[in-house]
Amino acid sequence: MRDTYVGPGRALDPEFWFVVLVNQIGSGLGTSPHTTDGPFGRGRFPHVRIGDDVLAQERLLREHLSVEQLALVFGGSMGAQQTYEWAVRFPEQVLRAAPLAGTARIYEHCRIVGMTLVDGLTSDPGYIDGFYEQSSDVRRGLERHARLFALHVLSNDFWTHEHWRPLGFSSADDFTTSFLGGHFDPMDASDLVTQSWKWQHGDVSRHTGGDLAAALGRITARTTVMPISTDKFFPVPDCAAEQELIPGSTLRVIEDVHGHAALFGLAGPAYTEQVDAALTDLLSS
Amino acid sequence: MRDTYVGPGRALDPEFWFVVLVNQIGSGLGTSPHTTDGPFGRGRFPHVRIGDDVLAQERLLREHLSVEQLALVFGGSMGAQQTYEWAVRFPEQVLRAAPLAGTARIYEHCRIVGMTLVDGLTSDPGYIDGFYEQSSDVRRGLERHARLFALHVLSNDFWTHEHWRPLGFSSADDFTTSFLGGHFDPMDASDLVTQSWKWQHGDVSRHTGGDLAAALGRITARTTVMPISTDKFFPVPDCAAEQELIPGSTLRVIEDVHGHAALFGLAGPAYTEQVDAALTDLLSS
Repeated sequence: MRDTYVGPGRALDPEFWFVVLVNQIGSGLGTSPHTTDGPFGRGRFPHVRIGDDVLAQERLLREHLSVEQLALVFGGSMGAQQTYEWAVRFPEQVLRAAPLAGTARIYEHCRIVGMTLVDGLTSDPGYIDGFYEQSSDVRRGLERHARLFALHVLSNDFWTHEHWRPLGFSSADDFTTSFLGGHFDPMDASDLVTQSWKWQHGDVSRHTGGDLAAALGRITARTTVMPISTDKFFPVPDCAAEQELIPGSTLRVIEDVHGHAALFGLAGPAYTEQVDAALTDLLSS
Repeated sequence: MRDTYVGPGRALDPEFWFVVLVNQIGSGLGTSPHTTDGPFGRGRFPHVRIGDDVLAQERLLREHLSVEQLALVFGGSMGAQQTYEWAVRFPEQVLRAAPLAGTARIYEHCRIVGMTLVDGLTSDPGYIDGFYEQSSDVRRGLERHARLFALHVLSNDFWTHEHWRPLGFSSADDFTTSFLGGHFDPMDASDLVTQSWKWQHGDVSRHTGGDLAAALGRITARTTVMPISTDKFFPVPDCAAEQELIPGSTLRVIEDVHGHAALFGLAGPAYTEQVDAALTDLLSS
């Protein structure tokens, strides 16, 4: 996130704004199944929700950094889920919100993706209900996970028109193995399962008895909804339908061929410029 | 196929046309891994290509039915792959061609889908390289296969707007388990692996050294290309790009919300009417 979205001269310029970047529970970097020993660690790590992330973030900001109002909450993918959670749960604290490539509620097609990702990992006999010795014991599961990701995180156009070529890969399989495999190999299966469960259950309408319009109607932040044009996880129609439920909000479709993966720094300067322009407009409003 | 596409008063009216419906190699109904004993059966069943299906069909028609010219070759999904293969391999025998929800060449995103389907099946410890005792030994693999299919064979809209409800299911999971699980449970994993390999390798440009335009340029059949508007396997842009390479061909997009599954009789009369109208126009030309 930092390298792709924050920097001098950018919309998120740390010389002007007080920028706080937080990770999520279960990411593998902070509190996560594979870093947690004792009765609630590893295969017994509890289900965590987007709301748990946001509650922890709110405490971090208030108790440790004395921040009580946010000029902007911005995040992509599960960060977008957190952005929506912030804007619905703490409307008075969020002045602006910019969910990028994510939705306020998970839709069934994404829920099924999540189940197949978990299937891919937990079907590895080495997984042993999360109580394997070391992350690499689930190598085959991580490979299946990478392949499923390859399918969903990139657009059809990315594959059909070989957009891996300008990125320096020699074949589609090279991209999947080198880039996605390289990305997931060092990860831990139970951390990914925890993230997937959280992702599958993101839904701000939990605050309003399942009424999504009521939940999104609570948002007072000036909101710019930013889907990526070729995103398979969070297609433009899903994002646009939610945006229409947010008072005074704006839809800014980011045009890019890399699908959801554009988010992770795979796209070129044209992507960055669109995101920066949308954030600059929002921050100057 | 018969119940959905053939009948009195339909475009394919067996009282007027001599209709031949054939299955494919590896379908589980004819020559297939699980029905083949001996050294080339089961886990040693050879890779089979779309071209093998079409060669067998051509012999069936010529040697057993004395049919040497076809008023129409029509098929959906892998049947569309066979339709393209017919039109490119035997141009002088095919007067008309109607590939429905399929492409002449498989594209990378479909190839990856195929790999994940195979992963889902063969990762079952019960699979034992295809040498399991009985099909039900791979039950968990078949379940994973059904779930992956659930994701791809239906449109996002089908799930988001609960189009399983008018079909008589009580929930999304009910649909996946009852319908898709019920569909795949009785199948055999090694048959599905054989079909998937064949599907992943369909490509008429094998006849022209990889030049798709040259291969499709060989087609002399009057051709109507029929993608389904919400098909995830074979999206309209993939089908339309191929259609432009076929001399004198027509594109007829079939509008339906059920995605690729519309093909299998899941859709209603509006679907059937669109397909019949396209076939009637083609057959009267």
